[in-house]
Amino acid sequence: LAGSATQMAASPVSWSDKALRLLRGLNSFYLPGSSRAQCCPFVVSGQQVGWVPPVVVQELARFSEVFQTQGGSVELSPSLGSYAERSAAVDTVLRCLREENRFRCLRGWREEKYEVMARCCDQPLLAMERSATSLFGVKRYGVHVNGFTRQADGQLTMWVARRSLSKPTYPGLLDNMVAGGVACRTTIAETLVKECMEEACIPECIAKLARPVSTVSYTYEDDEGVFPESQFVFDLEVPHDFAPEIGDGEVQAFYLWPMDKVKEVLVSAEFKPNSAMVVLDFLLRHSYLHPDTEPYYQELVVGLHRPL
Amino acid sequence: LAGSATQMAASPVSWSDKALRLLRGLNSFYLPGSSRAQCCPFVVSGQQVGWVPPVVVQELARFSEVFQTQGGSVELSPSLGSYAERSAAVDTVLRCLREENRFRCLRGWREEKYEVMARCCDQPLLAMERSATSLFGVKRYGVHVNGFTRQADGQLTMWVARRSLSKPTYPGLLDNMVAGGVACRTTIAETLVKECMEEACIPECIAKLARPVSTVSYTYEDDEGVFPESQFVFDLEVPHDFAPEIGDGEVQAFYLWPMDKVKEVLVSAEFKPNSAMVVLDFLLRHSYLHPDTEPYYQELVVGLHRPL
Repeated sequence: LAGSATQMAASPVSWSDKALRLLRGLNSFYLPGSSRAQCCPFVVSGQQVGWVPPVVVQELARFSEVFQTQGGSVELSPSLGSYAERSAAVDTVLRCLREENRFRCLRGWREEKYEVMARCCDQPLLAMERSATSLFGVKRYGVHVNGFTRQADGQLTMWVARRSLSKPTYPGLLDNMVAGGVACRTTIAETLVKECMEEACIPECIAKLARPVSTVSYTYEDDEGVFPESQFVFDLEVPHDFAPEIGDGEVQAFYLWPMDKVKEVLVSAEFKPNSAMVVLDFLLRHSYLHPDTEPYYQELVVGLHRPL
Repeated sequence: LAGSATQMAASPVSWSDKALRLLRGLNSFYLPGSSRAQCCPFVVSGQQVGWVPPVVVQELARFSEVFQTQGGSVELSPSLGSYAERSAAVDTVLRCLREENRFRCLRGWREEKYEVMARCCDQPLLAMERSATSLFGVKRYGVHVNGFTRQADGQLTMWVARRSLSKPTYPGLLDNMVAGGVACRTTIAETLVKECMEEACIPECIAKLARPVSTVSYTYEDDEGVFPESQFVFDLEVPHDFAPEIGDGEVQAFYLWPMDKVKEVLVSAEFKPNSAMVVLDFLLRHSYLHPDTEPYYQELVVGLHRPL
């Protein structure tokens, strides 16, 4: 028994276990013990568009002309009949909460709006400041780009970015070549071209070679709220004599790494977790994992695509 | 108002709506109104490995030396301590139920065993006759192959099979080039090579070009029970001068179709539903859908990968 305990302590955690753990972390909202049972549905115009944690419900109850917090849900007042009215009323409340310094996430106020709707394809019901979306658990959408190149021998290598130390989130961590949120009134294709240029100086003629291949979808929670997110995944094969360059300063360096190294590093604490999912999706689609040798093959695929 | 009602009645159902409906049908076990709340967990050696519908629980209660049906679950007797003992005991019960003609699905008895385990990578707990698995809602795994070829102009065309009229399930419907269940003591790679040869006369040297790219995972129910299934998806690019041929008679014809035609037909009643999912996964991975123009892009990806 002592022997087996020693063995267990010594046995290194496998790549597969680390990959599964990564996906569990990003789907923490669905794990037993999460705040999910305590969260209230956030309802706008009869549709659930998010989840509000209890501590936020308490604060919103003070603004009864905007939020109705009785009956186990947080409902935006039906008297706010239009997109513009809803957006303005919520904005007023959020600026007040920010002024009162009620929530840490509002210190990261960006003056950047995200659309709120039940499904990405629905007509938006209102626009909400980006830094506040986790207080309401509203879905956020982004674009992530796997940048890769094909060597003369056919082997793929991947461009990996290292985030600037001045980024408010995940400073210094590894990331996809390009990634960004889909803001109000912007298409996914526009977001892709804009972020390619801003973050990595990739000209439009190359950015347009990016091909849509998947989404990764997941919901996690932390002390700043609930994060249901879906990233539209693109593969962008860049010419082998092309290199991304530091653009707006969100990235401090780009590395061109063989897939073995990328596979190893994606399960390390060095990689931004949701971006690591995008790389994992790439590994699966490009046959770097085989179901006879990857024990959690099915679980990994499913863990990348949870309903929001 | 009369005008808008007329308009609604006349508006054709879009491809996107049909695709979403396809995925809903294959995940019917998770829809409101399904039998899920009435099903009992099927527990073997302390682990849930399936879902037993109420009508099956009733029958199993007669075999109390094999199944313990108290307390809201169906538990295989812990006195059956080994894989061999469990397999034999369950087989005896199933042959009895078959003789008594209790369940229609057992008329399709195949003398083909599937492994039962909580996860595909776990050590199997017992083996169960294939035609009985839906009575216990045990997970089934299969291999599906997207066979395609690249024309001189770079366009892809896909090989689609038409199932034989003598098949017990989905006779005459369209299907993937090759597909088959993963039986006991067979690897996924072995299943792939075997089915390629048997169903489509594809020699091993070509079958081995198949690349693992994904899974599709879903759970549906019908009057024969509960079907949690996961298919390991492979893409197989065959040379453009190669054509699959009818093998063991499970297929009556092979067609080589442009992707536009394949896309259209996959949402029709002509396509075997779970095989249509495999084609949909191909369309997504090969950029035949774009998130700016496919309104349910995120929902389609998620619907292909539900946890079992």
